[in-house]
Amino acid sequence: MENVIAPCHVSIDCVVFGFDGERLNVLLLRRYGEDQGSVFHDMKLPGSLIYQDENLAEAASRVLTELTGLKRVALTQFKAYGSKDRTRDPKDVHWLERAQQTKVERIVTVAFLALTRISRMRPLTQVEACWVPIDEIPALAFDHNIIIQDSLNYLRNYVPLEPSSMFRLLPPQFTISQLRKVYNAVTGEQIDARNFYKKLKVMPYVVPSKYKETGVAHRAARLFNFDTKTYNKYRI
Amino acid sequence: MENVIAPCHVSIDCVVFGFDGERLNVLLLRRYGEDQGSVFHDMKLPGSLIYQDENLAEAASRVLTELTGLKRVALTQFKAYGSKDRTRDPKDVHWLERAQQTKVERIVTVAFLALTRISRMRPLTQVEACWVPIDEIPALAFDHNIIIQDSLNYLRNYVPLEPSSMFRLLPPQFTISQLRKVYNAVTGEQIDARNFYKKLKVMPYVVPSKYKETGVAHRAARLFNFDTKTYNKYRI
Repeated sequence: MENVIAPCHVSIDCVVFGFDGERLNVLLLRRYGEDQGSVFHDMKLPGSLIYQDENLAEAASRVLTELTGLKRVALTQFKAYGSKDRTRDPKDVHWLERAQQTKVERIVTVAFLALTRISRMRPLTQVEACWVPIDEIPALAFDHNIIIQDSLNYLRNYVPLEPSSMFRLLPPQFTISQLRKVYNAVTGEQIDARNFYKKLKVMPYVVPSKYKETGVAHRAARLFNFDTKTYNKYRI
Repeated sequence: MENVIAPCHVSIDCVVFGFDGERLNVLLLRRYGEDQGSVFHDMKLPGSLIYQDENLAEAASRVLTELTGLKRVALTQFKAYGSKDRTRDPKDVHWLERAQQTKVERIVTVAFLALTRISRMRPLTQVEACWVPIDEIPALAFDHNIIIQDSLNYLRNYVPLEPSSMFRLLPPQFTISQLRKVYNAVTGEQIDARNFYKKLKVMPYVVPSKYKETGVAHRAARLFNFDTKTYNKYRI
């Protein structure tokens, strides 16, 4: 076995985060397969082997568009996964070989991350896709639980460097309460409303609009916008 | 061509930074090849196709150990490169097929970054390797110039988050002048000696030793240590 060059396939996997108003969710696909004569079903990240005529980021965009109808979603590559054991589970190997109609070699996958508004997507009923809150993710195919955990860690390092990324999870107009919930979900902190107003002081790019919430039982809150021009002015 | 799964090889490439006392250097390998009947020579990053029995990080460690004698060097994966055009140059294809003794498919490479002291390495004469200052890097094989540029950008974002990484470029005992030169080289800033003393105030983990420089023409400067315990105490 020593020094034998590994025949590989290369795939991409997308960790798409969405915010449901309370919690961060991840977009997952249902998977049906066969294991030792009985049918199983579990979930996996949206992904695909790469095609000859596409680059890595193009493959990730294709998967996301096919699945969600979304085009022009910012995808960030965050890590490649190439453990020789990542396709060790016979369940995964059988499923892959049926899905691809070919013998499956070792698969190195390049993982991408996207932040989006759940409401921007077309309904997910056509495909076997669903949003799952990050604290309710079951055991997934391959090493996809590890990939999601790594993407969360990446996000928690990335957002303080690039706070604008948070606003991709929110509608164009949002309440401060919604922004606070996104902030807590993304950073893993538990900042209360009073302390969050201090954070807002370092976000001059969060500006009040003329509008208030409508159709709410409680007192309607002011709606805010993310102001790109102001944001770029305060960047180093 | 559409929807044909790309047969791939997967490789790793290492961007190894060293500091020569004045400037940041990158470790490069000389490459000899043939192009349209005439011999050419240029340079490339140290790298290798991955073997069946190794993970990505293991392949990167192997290449680094073979080349430099270094073991236990911290390698950080920073990006995968999978453009379908990255092996477009016939020079690169011919070289690869001769070196690998096999037809070469598309190659997706995963790039790793390491920071080390040039003096820690065994002499490089056995292998066709050399240190090249980052502002003197010529046109390299494949997309290796892009990979080095990306690794520098990564480093410039990474060092402020993890300042301890800078000290891997320095000997165990160093002068403040050496530390300032490393800081400027890594961040791309041009901080002078006077202003650098202000930076030092936020580095309580840089502690004076009992020793001074020896064998220098100018007045011997105090030697300092990097104190890991203090560093970890000040981390969030």
